Amino acid sequence: MLSLELTSALSNLLPPDRLYTDPVECYTYAYDNSRKIFPPQAVVFPLTTDEVQTIVMLCNQYKTPLVPRGRGTGTSGGSLPEQGGIALSLERMLSILSVDAANRVIVAEPGVLNQTIQETAKPYGFFWPPDPSSAMYSSIGGNIATSAGGPHAVKYGTTRDHVLGLTAVTGAGEVIKTGCYTTKGVVGYDLTRLLIGSEGTLAVITEATLKLTALPNSVAGITAYFRDSTSCAAAITQIMALPQLPSALEFLDSGSLDLIRNHHPKMLPSEANAMLMIEADGSESEIAATVSAILSACKTGGLIAASHAENIAALWKARKALSPLLREIAPKKINEDVVVPVNSLPEFLSSLEQLSKQYHVANVNFGHAGNGNIHVNLLIDPDDTEEAARAEQCLDRIFDLVIRLNGTLSGEHGIGSEKRAFIHKEIDQPTLILMKHIKQVFDPNNILNPGKLFP
Amino acid sequence: MLSLELTSALSNLLPPDRLYTDPVECYTYAYDNSRKIFPPQAVVFPLTTDEVQTIVMLCNQYKTPLVPRGRGTGTSGGSLPEQGGIALSLERMLSILSVDAANRVIVAEPGVLNQTIQETAKPYGFFWPPDPSSAMYSSIGGNIATSAGGPHAVKYGTTRDHVLGLTAVTGAGEVIKTGCYTTKGVVGYDLTRLLIGSEGTLAVITEATLKLTALPNSVAGITAYFRDSTSCAAAITQIMALPQLPSALEFLDSGSLDLIRNHHPKMLPSEANAMLMIEADGSESEIAATVSAILSACKTGGLIAASHAENIAALWKARKALSPLLREIAPKKINEDVVVPVNSLPEFLSSLEQLSKQYHVANVNFGHAGNGNIHVNLLIDPDDTEEAARAEQCLDRIFDLVIRLNGTLSGEHGIGSEKRAFIHKEIDQPTLILMKHIKQVFDPNNILNPGKLFP
Repeated sequence: MLSLELTSALSNLLPPDRLYTDPVECYTYAYDNSRKIFPPQAVVFPLTTDEVQTIVMLCNQYKTPLVPRGRGTGTSGGSLPEQGGIALSLERMLSILSVDAANRVIVAEPGVLNQTIQETAKPYGFFWPPDPSSAMYSSIGGNIATSAGGPHAVKYGTTRDHVLGLTAVTGAGEVIKTGCYTTKGVVGYDLTRLLIGSEGTLAVITEATLKLTALPNSVAGITAYFRDSTSCAAAITQIMALPQLPSALEFLDSGSLDLIRNHHPKMLPSEANAMLMIEADGSESEIAATVSAILSACKTGGLIAASHAENIAALWKARKALSPLLREIAPKKINEDVVVPVNSLPEFLSSLEQLSKQYHVANVNFGHAGNGNIHVNLLIDPDDTEEAARAEQCLDRIFDLVIRLNGTLSGEHGIGSEKRAFIHKEIDQPTLILMKHIKQVFDPNNILNPGKLFP
Repeated sequence: MLSLELTSALSNLLPPDRLYTDPVECYTYAYDNSRKIFPPQAVVFPLTTDEVQTIVMLCNQYKTPLVPRGRGTGTSGGSLPEQGGIALSLERMLSILSVDAANRVIVAEPGVLNQTIQETAKPYGFFWPPDPSSAMYSSIGGNIATSAGGPHAVKYGTTRDHVLGLTAVTGAGEVIKTGCYTTKGVVGYDLTRLLIGSEGTLAVITEATLKLTALPNSVAGITAYFRDSTSCAAAITQIMALPQLPSALEFLDSGSLDLIRNHHPKMLPSEANAMLMIEADGSESEIAATVSAILSACKTGGLIAASHAENIAALWKARKALSPLLREIAPKKINEDVVVPVNSLPEFLSSLEQLSKQYHVANVNFGHAGNGNIHVNLLIDPDDTEEAARAEQCLDRIFDLVIRLNGTLSGEHGIGSEKRAFIHKEIDQPTLILMKHIKQVFDPNNILNPGKLFP
């Protein structure tokens, strides 16, 4: 329960429509896409950096957890108030503060949707490259807090490559300004990137200076079908060895293809057990050369067919439908977004098949193969405790495999609460302790998203 | 003077050829390209991370300043032992630990020269984009410590965009591993970029995982001459509004052109008072389109001529000669590398001319115009104290101008000791205090490059 004094101070600060304390209203801010549920005791909707600062200072005064939240589309539990306290929803800080086409910059508040940034940039010939599959619904504040990426990261990088500066309120209640407005700048420590991906544990982002990129002239799609994952993985390695980077290189395994077949029986060749969805962008002449090089690189023993795809939109629709479709066949999935070096993908995928057999856990794997970023989905019945235990063991072995292959536990979803028990597999003790000390500097009373990230 | 116990502990650790204590030998490690001189009391040359760790722990025990140093090519005094103590030269940690072409990664020790990385990557069709003008002689450790950039940053970014992970020894003597080996990864705080540009104040970098980029198929050069800086700056704005980014866009003002004319009397049109050296790279067809678009964008009122340049190498040679040539006409120069938003360049350059007149201080300006990064050189006679005082006042006004235009005080040289008195113009007090607290976390006894960065 929140202290009465804190509730009263909040109601002095915010009008009733920007402060929820009714449990029913609060419950709508209890979940994210991890499907865990932790209701906050209150939800606040600040409109300005000053209001955020006052809220942070009140939470310090009353030692109350404060959990920043974008649009709750994260999959790792990063925005859930696990220890109770207050959900700090940034969804009403919705202003685009400036559009500066000459300098390729948009300055925006954290609640602005990724999609709105794209729509704002497009008339000027620009886009903002971070493209999580949630882009229609997720906010740039959340994108920044998780360093979100997506299919186009293989060519354009992730959020951390596309933010010039931030305004933020630290856990101690200080308003800080990080980075700069220009594409170059080395004045002081790089606090911008320290905040990017810090999952709301260090500071609340209240303003972001986004670096825009010119839209490509045109885009071409390629589909390639393979008899088996191994030959598909070999093609991935060959494609990534080309000088021209594809703008997307998505892998779908046999389980993923079966899911699509359930809905589109004639869409895919029946003998295909793995597929690549590839995109190339640039000028028309450039694309022609890239497409031809990629088609050649697809030639491995198990290739069924590789061809230029006419309808890219349909392709992406099928790819994006995968995650929701998975819920149809398994009420619970453990969704991991591990990364391995691209040339370790053949070994990773075959080891994954073995682990799936060994632990009798069905899995479906797809993802951003160009970055080696594979979404491993373990499909389990949550009522089957024996199966859930096997899945946990299998997951542990998968993480060990990833680390042995010099990979990383998360490419774009972050640690949140879902992976914090495993973070020590990747980050050694001295480095983890240092990170915790940095957390203390920003948030001495540990009120900001407490318990996240660290085991 | 170093304590005898510390000197003795160091001689137990290192053979005589890796520990200098003779003042004459130490003197060769007393300077960098800032031309200030601060001799260390000892110079150590570790070969391993373990040795670096032992040295850091000894310096903690004896509360002795330890100043990491690459090849001493920095211009901001960042590697000078201002408070005495020990110079930690990384120049003998020279191994390239792995070349992994399939994953586009080189892992190297900090003393490896930038040029060596380029030579190692080239046979595989790759390069490492950071290209400070010192690339032939500067080490990647130093490049990383300063987040070095150069002419190609306009298209490829600076060092912080091209490092995947680091091994480092903190000021407290802990060995940490930051980042990961893959192009995507969001596990824990981004300590990699916190260390990049931290000028040796947080940790000593002992190993770096570098991300490589495919070499462009071909490169084309363009030169454009203008009657005045204003029309040249207008052309810069027009070029940077094109969707195609040039791979370099270098500005030279009338002072710079006069310097070149002194050595090559017939190289430049006599009526030219400003010049752009432009480079475009990519596939041949792409370049043809880019060159044509850039040539159109050069058309402003003051354009004398813009044309495709046959001999790019000669162009770059002339450009790179500028900095040493400046020393011929002025024994002392104040070299600043301020950045302003690209569309503020016309106002910045004309205000710079006014300030030069107002303070009677000759200046020569050139630089990476595509990033708005201008090297402002105030030319003074160091024996003329009255002139030096005017130059200091002028510099202060230039910095105010830069901040008013939403720019930054340093694009690539860093703060070091040269600009620390001005850092408060750009970074507000709460943010600076936070940075200092981060410094304390990494280096509680303030032994690592003490006094740098902060006023």
